[in-house]
Amino acid sequence: MSAFEALAQLLGPRFTTADAARCQNGQNDGHYPEILPDAVAFPQDTQEVAQIVRICAAHSVPIVAFGAGTSLEGQHLATQGGVSVDFARMNKLLEVRPEDMNVVIQPGLTRKQLNQGLRATGLFFPIDPGADASLGGMAATRASGTTAVRYGTMRDNVLALEAVMADGSVIRTGTAARKSSAGYDLTHLLVGSEGTLGLITELTLKLHGIPEAIASATCHFETVADAVDCVILTIQSGLPLARIELVDEMMVRGFNLAQDAGLPEKPHLFLEFHGAPEAVRGQVTRFREIAADSGAGNWQEADTPEARTALWALRHSALPAISALDPGAGKKTLSTDVCVPISRLAEAVSVARAQAAARGLLCTIVGHVGDGNFHCGLRYDPADAAMVAKVMDYSGILAQTALRLGGTVTGEHGIGIGKQKYMSAEHGPALDWMARIKEAFDPAGILNPGKMLPETIAPSGKNGD
Amino acid sequence: MSAFEALAQLLGPRFTTADAARCQNGQNDGHYPEILPDAVAFPQDTQEVAQIVRICAAHSVPIVAFGAGTSLEGQHLATQGGVSVDFARMNKLLEVRPEDMNVVIQPGLTRKQLNQGLRATGLFFPIDPGADASLGGMAATRASGTTAVRYGTMRDNVLALEAVMADGSVIRTGTAARKSSAGYDLTHLLVGSEGTLGLITELTLKLHGIPEAIASATCHFETVADAVDCVILTIQSGLPLARIELVDEMMVRGFNLAQDAGLPEKPHLFLEFHGAPEAVRGQVTRFREIAADSGAGNWQEADTPEARTALWALRHSALPAISALDPGAGKKTLSTDVCVPISRLAEAVSVARAQAAARGLLCTIVGHVGDGNFHCGLRYDPADAAMVAKVMDYSGILAQTALRLGGTVTGEHGIGIGKQKYMSAEHGPALDWMARIKEAFDPAGILNPGKMLPETIAPSGKNGD
Repeated sequence: MSAFEALAQLLGPRFTTADAARCQNGQNDGHYPEILPDAVAFPQDTQEVAQIVRICAAHSVPIVAFGAGTSLEGQHLATQGGVSVDFARMNKLLEVRPEDMNVVIQPGLTRKQLNQGLRATGLFFPIDPGADASLGGMAATRASGTTAVRYGTMRDNVLALEAVMADGSVIRTGTAARKSSAGYDLTHLLVGSEGTLGLITELTLKLHGIPEAIASATCHFETVADAVDCVILTIQSGLPLARIELVDEMMVRGFNLAQDAGLPEKPHLFLEFHGAPEAVRGQVTRFREIAADSGAGNWQEADTPEARTALWALRHSALPAISALDPGAGKKTLSTDVCVPISRLAEAVSVARAQAAARGLLCTIVGHVGDGNFHCGLRYDPADAAMVAKVMDYSGILAQTALRLGGTVTGEHGIGIGKQKYMSAEHGPALDWMARIKEAFDPAGILNPGKMLPETIAPSGKNGD
Repeated sequence: MSAFEALAQLLGPRFTTADAARCQNGQNDGHYPEILPDAVAFPQDTQEVAQIVRICAAHSVPIVAFGAGTSLEGQHLATQGGVSVDFARMNKLLEVRPEDMNVVIQPGLTRKQLNQGLRATGLFFPIDPGADASLGGMAATRASGTTAVRYGTMRDNVLALEAVMADGSVIRTGTAARKSSAGYDLTHLLVGSEGTLGLITELTLKLHGIPEAIASATCHFETVADAVDCVILTIQSGLPLARIELVDEMMVRGFNLAQDAGLPEKPHLFLEFHGAPEAVRGQVTRFREIAADSGAGNWQEADTPEARTALWALRHSALPAISALDPGAGKKTLSTDVCVPISRLAEAVSVARAQAAARGLLCTIVGHVGDGNFHCGLRYDPADAAMVAKVMDYSGILAQTALRLGGTVTGEHGIGIGKQKYMSAEHGPALDWMARIKEAFDPAGILNPGKMLPETIAPSGKNGD
């Protein structure tokens, strides 16, 4: 029996080689072309995932996990074919434990679905990458977003997990206790491993109390440098912020075009403060004092929950807004993702702007600047080889700049296909030890093959040596 | 040339087989007997560590890292002989970066030395396990202590590190940026690995701003159950505490005997609040309201920095105070270390007390109860086999109870020698994947052999299979 026959027998209609399902799982929100898996499987529980992996392992068929398809570096694309394991049917909120401020979920649940399910508890899950990503995908990518400056990343908010490993065995890592010194930290090895070491089938996530008071606001600056100076001073002052987002003048123009936002086309900060009412007022006052020294103007507070939602929906509409700036059919958007120590943020942003200008690139900048993380959005026509080369060259300059400044080539989007070429520069000899882990966990190289580690150091099973 | 000849040639007088050095590194603050290494090496820099490892690897000589010797589970004891690599000479504060709130240090630096070195900056390193442990040892053990409820554990405060691996190669993991999604999280694989995967030779640690205001206080309760109820309600209310420590009536008696503390012999909470002055006052008020409902009495605030220091010095004198309760020469103290979800803390403490009473054991309880972590201190005479059996049996009951309640057998002391027997019960099939990592990173088993992983699943190199 072939692998696909065995999978069809196991899953019935929940295994398919139909074009519709393959096409759906072959798209991406990043700049990669459509890349179709050979088949799509929709497991309903962990044991089915384990059986799928055993069948694929027996037949050397690649396995690529699929959550919501919102990753930006092609992590979910089946570049070597095989089966897309789609967690759409494993999207249950299994257990809410308000007394311990944690929740047990299946990986296909999205962050918005989770927060819907938590509405009655007074608790929420804060990590917000913008897209309504699946929580399994967010864990696998070590995602973060606008609130990481306050609540950390997925690394900080996954307490425990269950995973199916390359041989089909099921493991549980971590416990529901807040801390442990018992053995190697497999939880945080699997978080950020992008489906290359195991398939996450359950997550225990930390929850946080919904703040008593929330204040959201925008203000603008004369120059991006002024806005960045304000961010650096704010972070260094120790002022607790829930979000502090840079939006440059070109991004504002995109928001105005796409959403009729009506904002002055100047660099902005989008801000949020969480806490007790009097604490939030104090934070706003202190922030406005710091911002005034950097020439901030046009302070606009979002006074109602609806206005706050609209403010953050606008901020999170960057991708369509970038398209609106340069709409040509077939064009793609590349989003860079460097992250640097806060003291080097001004230099990193300055290099990004100068290099884009020198190349005549239309470039937007948005970023979770409180973490030192920002994204340059670049439009290009994939058919225009010279333009592609120019954009890729620019992306490479930014990566080198981040490393020179003591930072990382990816703050939150992950490695996937697109950043493999920088792995050696970022990690040096440590990369060999990552390869040892991959080799030890997946010697045949069936879990998301061709991702994360560069080809030259991929495990022997995939290189035929 | 033998390994020791080569090491003597490399290090001169900084390599020794003299009894004095061997004895010093063969002691422990836990309940284990003296276990001497065959030799002690005092490297001065990373390259020397790498050369030591290469020499030992070539001769199959075990390597055991030594920081300050304060670990409680024998992590630094050379149970299979070999070389104790003593980081006493690698204790420099290499670089303070106040603008990024981090610091680069060598592993032999202790936490008190670090905070001395930070005095001019307005920043501090908060993790406080009581003992003046080396920061390399704290990272390797994933240590925490009284302030973890507010500032997290070593896991949360190590940004990046340098390590010498089993083949003598030197790797750097992580960056100075606050977050990254670039590849497998080797930093947090090495944190907590107890010297079994590599030797940490440099750490980049997060720093925190010294709070504007600090309030420390003690209060007492009629029963331990009342004190624990107060802790649970406080944590579940979301009140931010910097420390919340349980001290039971027997531990208070020890403090009174050893330190003439003059405290009423009732269960106490020792507390600390950090923040802006008005926030701290608000926290104290809210806490006292919650505590009043649990019958708290005798609120005593430490009004001066000296009084605060004295309060925490008293709390951290648990080991000598336990000895004072039962001073017999040659007696040892075993300190348990379970950690459970906060909602199960009352049950865990209740089991611990009932089981001690049923066995007629003199038992003190102290704990970082805001994390669900507490320690039972048990005195025994190692020559009294029946008593040893009783104490070990009790420790096992506690470990089983923690696992039954969804917790861990060690919140912060680590595995070392003493907790290996519980690894399978805590991790189940995940343990095999820990063994794969050990095998991949240290196939010959020269790094702290015989620790962490139980013998039955140790890498093949050590079992001869």
